[in-house]
Amino acid sequence: MFEVNVAPFVATTAMQSNLCPALPSTVDRHSRETGYMNHTATAADTQCINTIRTLAMDAVQKANSGHPGTPMGLAPVGYTLWSRFLRYHPEHPDWPNRDRFVLSVGHASMLLYSLLHLAGVVEIDAHGKRSGEPAVSLDDIKQFRQMSSKTPGHPEYRMTTGVETTTGPLGQGCANSVGMAMAERWLAKRFNRDGQVLFDYDVYTLCGDGDMMEGISSEAASMAGHLRLDNLCWIYDNNTISIEGHTELAFSEDVIKRFQAYGWHTVHVTDANDLQALSVALQTFKANTGAPTLIVVDSVIGYGSPHKHNTAAAHGEPLGEDEIRLTKAAYGWPQDASFLVPDEARATLRDALVERAEPLFAEWNQTLASLDPQRADELQRMRAGEMPEQWQADLPNFAADAKGVASRASGGEVLNAFAQHIPWLLGGSADLSPSTKTNLTFDGAGRFSADDYSGRNLHFGIREHAMGAIANGMALSYLRPYTSTFLVFSDYMKPPIRLAAIMELPVIFVFTHDSIGVGEDGPTHQPIEHLTQLRATPGLLTLRPGDANETLELWKVALAQTHRPSCVVLSRQPLPTLDRSRYASAAGAAKGAYVLAGADKPEVILIATGSEVSLAVAAYEQLTGEGIAAQVVSMPSWELFEDQDQAYRDSVLPPSVKARVVVEQAGPLGWDRYVGQAGAKVVMNSFGASAPLAKLQEKFGFTLENVVGLAKQQIQHNRPE
Amino acid sequence: MFEVNVAPFVATTAMQSNLCPALPSTVDRHSRETGYMNHTATAADTQCINTIRTLAMDAVQKANSGHPGTPMGLAPVGYTLWSRFLRYHPEHPDWPNRDRFVLSVGHASMLLYSLLHLAGVVEIDAHGKRSGEPAVSLDDIKQFRQMSSKTPGHPEYRMTTGVETTTGPLGQGCANSVGMAMAERWLAKRFNRDGQVLFDYDVYTLCGDGDMMEGISSEAASMAGHLRLDNLCWIYDNNTISIEGHTELAFSEDVIKRFQAYGWHTVHVTDANDLQALSVALQTFKANTGAPTLIVVDSVIGYGSPHKHNTAAAHGEPLGEDEIRLTKAAYGWPQDASFLVPDEARATLRDALVERAEPLFAEWNQTLASLDPQRADELQRMRAGEMPEQWQADLPNFAADAKGVASRASGGEVLNAFAQHIPWLLGGSADLSPSTKTNLTFDGAGRFSADDYSGRNLHFGIREHAMGAIANGMALSYLRPYTSTFLVFSDYMKPPIRLAAIMELPVIFVFTHDSIGVGEDGPTHQPIEHLTQLRATPGLLTLRPGDANETLELWKVALAQTHRPSCVVLSRQPLPTLDRSRYASAAGAAKGAYVLAGADKPEVILIATGSEVSLAVAAYEQLTGEGIAAQVVSMPSWELFEDQDQAYRDSVLPPSVKARVVVEQAGPLGWDRYVGQAGAKVVMNSFGASAPLAKLQEKFGFTLENVVGLAKQQIQHNRPE
Repeated sequence: MFEVNVAPFVATTAMQSNLCPALPSTVDRHSRETGYMNHTATAADTQCINTIRTLAMDAVQKANSGHPGTPMGLAPVGYTLWSRFLRYHPEHPDWPNRDRFVLSVGHASMLLYSLLHLAGVVEIDAHGKRSGEPAVSLDDIKQFRQMSSKTPGHPEYRMTTGVETTTGPLGQGCANSVGMAMAERWLAKRFNRDGQVLFDYDVYTLCGDGDMMEGISSEAASMAGHLRLDNLCWIYDNNTISIEGHTELAFSEDVIKRFQAYGWHTVHVTDANDLQALSVALQTFKANTGAPTLIVVDSVIGYGSPHKHNTAAAHGEPLGEDEIRLTKAAYGWPQDASFLVPDEARATLRDALVERAEPLFAEWNQTLASLDPQRADELQRMRAGEMPEQWQADLPNFAADAKGVASRASGGEVLNAFAQHIPWLLGGSADLSPSTKTNLTFDGAGRFSADDYSGRNLHFGIREHAMGAIANGMALSYLRPYTSTFLVFSDYMKPPIRLAAIMELPVIFVFTHDSIGVGEDGPTHQPIEHLTQLRATPGLLTLRPGDANETLELWKVALAQTHRPSCVVLSRQPLPTLDRSRYASAAGAAKGAYVLAGADKPEVILIATGSEVSLAVAAYEQLTGEGIAAQVVSMPSWELFEDQDQAYRDSVLPPSVKARVVVEQAGPLGWDRYVGQAGAKVVMNSFGASAPLAKLQEKFGFTLENVVGLAKQQIQHNRPE
Repeated sequence: MFEVNVAPFVATTAMQSNLCPALPSTVDRHSRETGYMNHTATAADTQCINTIRTLAMDAVQKANSGHPGTPMGLAPVGYTLWSRFLRYHPEHPDWPNRDRFVLSVGHASMLLYSLLHLAGVVEIDAHGKRSGEPAVSLDDIKQFRQMSSKTPGHPEYRMTTGVETTTGPLGQGCANSVGMAMAERWLAKRFNRDGQVLFDYDVYTLCGDGDMMEGISSEAASMAGHLRLDNLCWIYDNNTISIEGHTELAFSEDVIKRFQAYGWHTVHVTDANDLQALSVALQTFKANTGAPTLIVVDSVIGYGSPHKHNTAAAHGEPLGEDEIRLTKAAYGWPQDASFLVPDEARATLRDALVERAEPLFAEWNQTLASLDPQRADELQRMRAGEMPEQWQADLPNFAADAKGVASRASGGEVLNAFAQHIPWLLGGSADLSPSTKTNLTFDGAGRFSADDYSGRNLHFGIREHAMGAIANGMALSYLRPYTSTFLVFSDYMKPPIRLAAIMELPVIFVFTHDSIGVGEDGPTHQPIEHLTQLRATPGLLTLRPGDANETLELWKVALAQTHRPSCVVLSRQPLPTLDRSRYASAAGAAKGAYVLAGADKPEVILIATGSEVSLAVAAYEQLTGEGIAAQVVSMPSWELFEDQDQAYRDSVLPPSVKARVVVEQAGPLGWDRYVGQAGAKVVMNSFGASAPLAKLQEKFGFTLENVVGLAKQQIQHNRPE
């Protein structure tokens, strides 16, 4: 006999929540700890669960650093999910249709490492090959949090097979999982046919109080509800303990009701150790259609630890040798054994997974073999991160045009040209697509919605933070996503940009309205420090094209990436399209910086990016007209330029020419590298202002007169005495 | 007779929401537009409301830029609130107990400017003096969005009297308003006595779909509900139109239910033009205790415009001359009049405000006059942004100590020392205070909670974004707030940091765990680009002390600011406390950079910040021991250093000494300015890794050997040939 306390129900605006008890503000955890494991678990279950718990305790203790409490509390949850539900083949962790398991509570990494170890997941190396090693060996677990180990403090994508996404910064995993679930819906539409199901995976996310409190999860949950993602299941570890103490210090909302308001199904499991209740809850998720599911699980952090359970002390530090012995005793575990993994425990979890996945995997491969060649080729390329053969066909050609076009507009044209030939390039905006011009407008592009998951235009709503993390989740699922908003709002989505860089995901972040060119909207909408921020982020490409043809070249660069995210930074205002018969080809943009035009032995170099390139060209023309030997360099990307060899870099910026002027409508920080400490900088040394652009350019010195004057001054200052 | 559709009710976890109709997913707006103004408005009301609407239309048209639709839709809401409820004296807009009106939908700035104009609010200049000018004249309105006008595109604090906070980036105003409401609760506890009520103001916030979707508002709303802020009223403009079209594209959650889940009262007004219903809703707020109130108002964007109402076209561009004429006709307004403000309209709003505020203001001044001298002095200083006289008494003294102390720990000690003498210095952490060491531990510091608003320790929960914006709201309300989290999570709160800088608010943002010194938590928790980001933000002080005594000096600098926010950047790991009898006094830190020790004519300069200062000192000692003339510079703040005159800067970094090495556990960007293009940089050129700190320092070159070697190489390279 067992007790189940599960009340599944559908939340819609029409329904009341009277079937579900509200989350109690306090839970009497002690009453639930008379036995350390309830009677719905078999001995084999218990053995596995306690193996996970003790591995977490031992690894943290050995590393003298880490988070034991959450793995101890959640071991039954992770185990139940993996052993009874997850469609995951340990020998094929790269199976495209595997269920995804996202550990949004990344600090509980030992839970994931223990599961990967017990499941016998094999390693796939950086080249997608089987290394013959386990994903996580017992030795790896003993190397927890050590240099270059496969078991870093927080799970890192690409570092450990089986880690679906890098987590740690709270809320990110939740939003990633929404992207993965959206990707599944899209992939299913693209690849499934009658009798041919290539994609029907589910996405499970373990999240905690921090995830629930972070705004990004609210954004992501609202969007998941809106899109009715019934392949998505978040499991909320309601352990009521955060670092400062009991969550009642700061958190008293009714989480279940909130998620119902988002349109989610909700289920409440009142004891994390009740495997049967957990199973019923997960079955409810599987049976449920038309909405994502939230399972709230009341758990006890540091479960089993006589002195530290249910306290913040169990969260982020080793339990201590003595407490570990007492806890093992409470589990009925050998007190003196460290890193003890019974062979039966490995067999239990692995066999359960293989038994469930093997026939599914076999069937999937049969289906794959029967796929029409075009779709098969497509899927193969998506998995390999390759582009379709024709991806550069039908690109536009921008003729010289003094009036010109905003790079957001040429960007939109270029994006559409590429997207027509890259079926899995899809994206959207945080409610600014009419301004960012990123809508895909060709026939069949469609709108991604709950009614049609095949669409390629995503409406993220005014949710920049979730947008970035959702894009990361899609990139982790074979798609090539792009996002868009104004550059100043990159601030709202910096955490996922950083994670894209850490994970080496080729997400494309489009940012328009990239300077005081915004004009009347004023300082809150005019980016100043943002180019610097992006350039300062390791592994990120920042691309700021100077005209329509550079926009084309740099979109091409962004799309060609396989391991780097890109920021494509575009103007609101029109930019003249340079006459390339007069100036160097825009192909140079792909090298980060190139000489647009110039004397053999220039007296002064003018450097500019983006919307300021045309001003620098005008200054160059005037200087040349006055008989001054000038050179003008367009520098759309510092990172690409630094990738070139020294000879090339010196050819663009000859070290002997010290007279230099940079023109960029952004903050000065970092430009000393290219103009020297004594170079002139026509940049923004303050926030902007609300006024028409022409007035702003005058006020802040972005005028022909000022640039020419500074160029002459530079020549003067650098003349040999 | 009038129809009221108002269903006020209290949301608690125990109650069901069956009294309130769920928000309809679509509203048939056309059915509500048979008459342009309903019968609950008097002619005088209608005149005021249409003045606001037409001013917004005309100003946007003249500027050829801006957002007319929301002011047109919300004019009755703004008018009803101001004329019937707001306790605000137009002649005393700096009255500390005025009700706050926050326009979180900052793009609807013309609504606010029109209200300020009609109300006859007087201008208070930058020095707190009456200028004799109106806050917003009709000429100012004609200068909407022009250079240096008092009517910038989005409302800017300090630019226009009556603008309580700078808004535009969505969600920020909402979270600011939570800070203002928290401040009121605290001020009331501090200053009210039996029969002496100095603070009982309410905070009203106009917000829109964007605010509702942004995660920051979710965080702030959850916190406001938790703190039971019954002085806070958000009015949600449910116009169902965002930039990409109908909100149903991306937003279908049940907002009312969501806010009930946060513990808010909710009221639904189904017609923005029903002044009586709006009044009942606002009365409900006034009568309500124990929870904040959300009033959902169904409105029509661009109300009255025959062709653009209820469309995205009314959102962000001028209506056009023809449409304006048609709209004015629909209002019964003279079609040919531009910027028409009937004198009666001014009188109507102004008189209503004065009549309500005058007796309250008089009584308040009487109460103020009867205040005990100590409290009176305190309030005067708070209003003037001055410190208490004794604020630097009882500061700790850190003796030389080779083992040393983490700057987060010395920072906590310093903070507590200052806070004992600055009663209105208060703050907290996003659930990391045991790690950031920012808890105030002395007697009486207390915890700020719904049960005791006098506390000075704030528990923000895991809500960095709202934390930053709430701190801004508190700083706008006479308090000196500080926040804390890990430096890497500054990414989660960059938007409010930027707004603090734009608004020139002396908020103190404490960021600990400031480098790879984080160790085992790995790259997701190790900041790299963050110092650069903060340094790149105009108007922001970034302070990274090198030992305990510098920590003291720099906390002092941060507290002494009146117009600059500061980031105090602190280490996780212990830093040796330098022997100041051997090295220069830490007082030099206040100048941003100073020579710790060095030869008169150094051959090489070692520059370091924060935790790397001790490594640079060790390298200096070794070089000196080897007979090499070295100099070591501690450089905790670029901004403070740039504030010094050239002579001082040259004395610290003599231009003649080209051999330079910088040591900083952060990204390289920007250091060329101080070490030159050929200088050596011991910095982080990639993300970090998960490992013990000593291993990381070795891997990334933060070793004595490496620094000494590079110093010698620099001398070699810079030797005259």
